[in-house]
Amino acid sequence: MLSDKIITTLQEIVGEEHFSLTEADRSLHAKDQSSHAARMPDAVIWPETTQQVSAILRHANEHKIPIVGWGAGSSLEGNSIPLKGGIVVDFVRMNQILTVYAEDFQVTVQPGIFYKDMNKMLAQHGLFFAPDPGANASIGGMIANNAAGTRTPKYGATRDNVLALEVVLANGDIIRTGSRSIKQSAGYDLTHLFTGSEGTLGLITEATLKLAPIPEHFSAAIASFQTTEAAAEAVFHIMGSGLNPAALELLDTATVEVMNQEDNMDLVPAPTLFLEFHGASDATLEVELDLVQAICEESGSQTFKAGIGRESRNRLWQARHHLGEVLFRMFPDHDYLITDVSVPISQYPVLVAFALEALSKLDDAPAFIFGHAGDGNLHSSVYYPLDDEAALTKVQEGFNDRVIEQAIALGGTCTGEHGVGIGKQKYMVREHGEKAIAVMRQVKAMFDPNGILNPGKVVG
Amino acid sequence: MLSDKIITTLQEIVGEEHFSLTEADRSLHAKDQSSHAARMPDAVIWPETTQQVSAILRHANEHKIPIVGWGAGSSLEGNSIPLKGGIVVDFVRMNQILTVYAEDFQVTVQPGIFYKDMNKMLAQHGLFFAPDPGANASIGGMIANNAAGTRTPKYGATRDNVLALEVVLANGDIIRTGSRSIKQSAGYDLTHLFTGSEGTLGLITEATLKLAPIPEHFSAAIASFQTTEAAAEAVFHIMGSGLNPAALELLDTATVEVMNQEDNMDLVPAPTLFLEFHGASDATLEVELDLVQAICEESGSQTFKAGIGRESRNRLWQARHHLGEVLFRMFPDHDYLITDVSVPISQYPVLVAFALEALSKLDDAPAFIFGHAGDGNLHSSVYYPLDDEAALTKVQEGFNDRVIEQAIALGGTCTGEHGVGIGKQKYMVREHGEKAIAVMRQVKAMFDPNGILNPGKVVG
Repeated sequence: MLSDKIITTLQEIVGEEHFSLTEADRSLHAKDQSSHAARMPDAVIWPETTQQVSAILRHANEHKIPIVGWGAGSSLEGNSIPLKGGIVVDFVRMNQILTVYAEDFQVTVQPGIFYKDMNKMLAQHGLFFAPDPGANASIGGMIANNAAGTRTPKYGATRDNVLALEVVLANGDIIRTGSRSIKQSAGYDLTHLFTGSEGTLGLITEATLKLAPIPEHFSAAIASFQTTEAAAEAVFHIMGSGLNPAALELLDTATVEVMNQEDNMDLVPAPTLFLEFHGASDATLEVELDLVQAICEESGSQTFKAGIGRESRNRLWQARHHLGEVLFRMFPDHDYLITDVSVPISQYPVLVAFALEALSKLDDAPAFIFGHAGDGNLHSSVYYPLDDEAALTKVQEGFNDRVIEQAIALGGTCTGEHGVGIGKQKYMVREHGEKAIAVMRQVKAMFDPNGILNPGKVVG
Repeated sequence: MLSDKIITTLQEIVGEEHFSLTEADRSLHAKDQSSHAARMPDAVIWPETTQQVSAILRHANEHKIPIVGWGAGSSLEGNSIPLKGGIVVDFVRMNQILTVYAEDFQVTVQPGIFYKDMNKMLAQHGLFFAPDPGANASIGGMIANNAAGTRTPKYGATRDNVLALEVVLANGDIIRTGSRSIKQSAGYDLTHLFTGSEGTLGLITEATLKLAPIPEHFSAAIASFQTTEAAAEAVFHIMGSGLNPAALELLDTATVEVMNQEDNMDLVPAPTLFLEFHGASDATLEVELDLVQAICEESGSQTFKAGIGRESRNRLWQARHHLGEVLFRMFPDHDYLITDVSVPISQYPVLVAFALEALSKLDDAPAFIFGHAGDGNLHSSVYYPLDDEAALTKVQEGFNDRVIEQAIALGGTCTGEHGVGIGKQKYMVREHGEKAIAVMRQVKAMFDPNGILNPGKVVG
């Protein structure tokens, strides 16, 4: 697809060693962590500067070559799969912290930095970037997908923590959006338009992020329940009480059993809530934990374990964070489908009950329910035999479609944090209505008239 | 400007009694609370339903008639002045609370409801909408301008508290954006694109807002300093300590003296900080107040008064909130210019020192400095004799322009919460760069190809 002349130009832009046509490099950029089919790009390019990204896009736009930004490849909805081939722009060489504004709790970074690596470096300033999708995602990818994770109830999703961006548009123009001021009312909010646009409106080449002080005091607790519904009911009452947990995770029995088996977690094998609070003092945290315990007991908790130390707490979160990988390894002959719906918190118990009922109709498909419950976000991972189209259809139609429709009917969304990518496009009209989708398509056409930016995603 | 046929059609849409051509009604919709020149619309219309708004816009779009949305008329940058005449759409008859989702801390309202009235009604649910611009603004206006106020450090600006919108586009199409889910990653963030767009991209006809529980415990404190610079320095250290005040306001001596005189406040006549904390328990609040007091003393505070009861605290905020009106009445033969810049908190002392220095060059112009300091937001009100062009130029060029340029140079913005309106347009390129402004213009042209929506605002 790429002519020799185009190849030569791209090589001149970044240097030959930062451009590849090899099958090895291309296949490393053909697939994310979802089960969506791989598609190899025609080339991979590793820019080192915004100017190079600008030159790449200008050239690609002239020749109508698809361009897909690439961070860690850890997306879960096919977001970074180069559906139409073309060039994958891998930002791994643009992975620097540019400026730490420690006094303002802010940092300016390049998009290729992975958030866990960034947070390690920020720790010396006593600060961290709160959104944590689990996998070691890149900041550019997190912004592009509006990633979230376990700490959203207190700290917000990525969208809530982006102040300013540098973006290269399809035609190569470089723009800056937002500012370092927390308060901003100066014109259209382009920063949040690019956040969550999955690389379809422009490529992010720099970002200024809000940070939070690393909490000096935290408390963690584990509550187990007789039923998943009861655990979900407790979530609703905890959030409705005005408590502000840093994290509030739900896990069903099957998930807990996996964590016990794979990570020696010694958890009660029952539906479980993980809770964490960040506070100014241990005294406050104790008050909050007492309240949470009372709420859990009213909702029928069977065990409630507080006073979890730093090490156990870290192990807990580590196990939670690599749950996806663990499950993936456990079913080598299977593919899987992950649900990522979110609803208003009052509807969370309804949603969980519905999902359990729908799961029960899938016969013996291995299935796991867990979620960032404090946000009303529910995930489920359902496994089906590789290349078994009938089984996939059953999971897709009998479970995923039904749960998504239910979530939308409950005032929620088809995707809380994984983004639209490939898999969620078919629900977009259902969620937003035809006219809103028409507006999104107009926005897309305005920013990317030649349709080169991550074609086939979000609104097609 | 409006033909008989158009008038008849508009009257048919809303009923004759909800349409006016009288000079009295038109002049009531000719001016906001800024000093920008009044401009009468050709007509005022009071729709009662989204369908009527849609019909009005469709008709106006066909005939290229300017349309300006109207809430309370309390904007401060000319945002709602119908610069090109046309029709003002006053939302006062669309002022209902549609649904209170008490368990989700959410409410769906029509745009014409005033936020203070709404909060009175929400109090029975123990909830409130946190952004508080002071004047009794309408929710539609607050969203259109991304209004903020005193409680932003803890609760965020309006933008941070809008979940979903119903918007009527220029062509009359009705769209819905967002959802009631706290987490949303389903496509382009149109909700935040409309928020702060000042009625130039569409008219908001319904909004779902995030609410907060009315805090059971609060503490308030007043600290006075020898200099305004020292007070600003304390602000920086308070915010940098990781404390999370609900409000942190700065007032210079002149402002404090006005409050003493007009509201019998009995404050120490010196540069002052007002602080308020909302917490889960009095114990936490005490810890926070002790820390704040220590920080203030290190920054050279002269007095520190804590333990302020509910009544005194309410009086304090009331006096702070009607400061604008009070000042306005004090200088009947004057007009005024309000500055509304915001910077990263580390730069706040620099900005304040710069503003004081610039003010000192204005000779004896009555001037007041105050601001939502916890957000890095600085206001100043400078008074000049009515119709004295030379004095206005001096204030504009010698003070406002310089402070704004300084704020932008410090990584901040020309407007933290008043919006662009008329007065801030000339700084937009300086703040965002020409290419970002070109994108904003494209966005405007896409949503409003005939340029009927609040023409002459934001990006012209």
